[in-house]
Amino acid sequence: MAVGGERVTAAVLIIGDEILSGRTQDVNLNAIAKYLATYGVDLAEARVVPDIEQEIVDAVNHLRAKYDYLITTGGIGPTHDDITADSVAKAFGVTAPEHPEIMAMLRERWGEPNAARRRMAHVPEGGVLVKNPVQGPPGFQKENVFVLAGVPAIMRGMLDDVGPRLRTGAVVISKTVRVTGTGEGTIAAPLEAVAKAHPDLSIGSYPFFAPPDLYGASLVIRGRDPVEVEAAVVELMATLADLGVRGVERLPDGAA
Amino acid sequence: MAVGGERVTAAVLIIGDEILSGRTQDVNLNAIAKYLATYGVDLAEARVVPDIEQEIVDAVNHLRAKYDYLITTGGIGPTHDDITADSVAKAFGVTAPEHPEIMAMLRERWGEPNAARRRMAHVPEGGVLVKNPVQGPPGFQKENVFVLAGVPAIMRGMLDDVGPRLRTGAVVISKTVRVTGTGEGTIAAPLEAVAKAHPDLSIGSYPFFAPPDLYGASLVIRGRDPVEVEAAVVELMATLADLGVRGVERLPDGAA
Repeated sequence: MAVGGERVTAAVLIIGDEILSGRTQDVNLNAIAKYLATYGVDLAEARVVPDIEQEIVDAVNHLRAKYDYLITTGGIGPTHDDITADSVAKAFGVTAPEHPEIMAMLRERWGEPNAARRRMAHVPEGGVLVKNPVQGPPGFQKENVFVLAGVPAIMRGMLDDVGPRLRTGAVVISKTVRVTGTGEGTIAAPLEAVAKAHPDLSIGSYPFFAPPDLYGASLVIRGRDPVEVEAAVVELMATLADLGVRGVERLPDGAA
Repeated sequence: MAVGGERVTAAVLIIGDEILSGRTQDVNLNAIAKYLATYGVDLAEARVVPDIEQEIVDAVNHLRAKYDYLITTGGIGPTHDDITADSVAKAFGVTAPEHPEIMAMLRERWGEPNAARRRMAHVPEGGVLVKNPVQGPPGFQKENVFVLAGVPAIMRGMLDDVGPRLRTGAVVISKTVRVTGTGEGTIAAPLEAVAKAHPDLSIGSYPFFAPPDLYGASLVIRGRDPVEVEAAVVELMATLADLGVRGVERLPDGAA
């Protein structure tokens, strides 16, 4: 994923048995990837782990050390399987006391909250709240780790309070050339030639097919320098034309 | 994820820049999770890595050592960004020569295949083919690692040739009690009591809400002993009734 320019990286850690059991189709990873892209932050890795403390601790410590940012989703509710805040605290070697602002919110909503709801006030020492504009308690940021809800609508609402806190990179521009009716095997060599001529770009080929006879590939050129991305698109289309490949169309910018 | 009985575990490794860039919404993880569940194999972890050899090698070696099986998706086509077979070979410390059966398939389809298509014949030494009943070349199995396509329809077709090769575990049974109109904070204590009384079961709470006023949680009880799962459901419903919680319904088996 060489896309040139200054690179700011992030990882996502999805916490939840329900994703691994197949009960729930995750949609948060895709939403976060698209959101980070608008800030020029590259999502470099993602992991899904179950609701097991040691698994969460190990993943948090690996990912927060390796990338500029880590965003976690899931496990911040009031039930016994919501162990994210305490696990993140353990990863940092700190405690997770009840945060006074969250306690005030809970008291306003529930009177004196029961023990279960008080779990939702656990924030690792030194943590800063992340606003929840949708429903329920906030998430939090502890150093370079953002801890968000798992419910997609709530997670997306919290993201709005994450972006402004990020060190931003140069935004990656993506352009797509679609080839219909020609297999990847025919266009692989010219595509590779363009990729080798532009080592700062990331050039991917994503095949599609719909039986019985629609097939082809989307050739996606990504990079931080708009001039170079455009040059690569022009070269690729010229090379494909020279080879007599038909069904080549350039998609409008922003289309996939 | 304590669900009792003999446990057979698997991990999934999704290989592809397109998932991390947000271009593509992954659906393979969910399909594999559901498929493995029918064989009593627990999906214990998943990772998404970019098309970078060292990242793939490191993830393959970590996951194949930690779990009984590893299933990878993506990166087995003919283009320059399809580096999965060679990376898996490197992880095992072997070469990835052209597999004679795949070469025969390619010759039947294309005559003498070009260099790009020959990439699709790369299989790590000692690898065994995985049938592709849909379109294109097969995947392969190298020891406990299964390497499948990324295109969902093809990936699912290949899975049919994976299941029969797995050491199967006791299938996990899942039953769901849905509580509507009561928040998780109210039911957390009785839910935790049931969870503590049944340490061999995995009991999760998955909140839902649809503004302005539909909210609640699905309480999912999972385990390998049908009698114990049923007992926990009965206990949970009795406890919720004792507490006067309304809107409690048991979903039909198999519903989520």
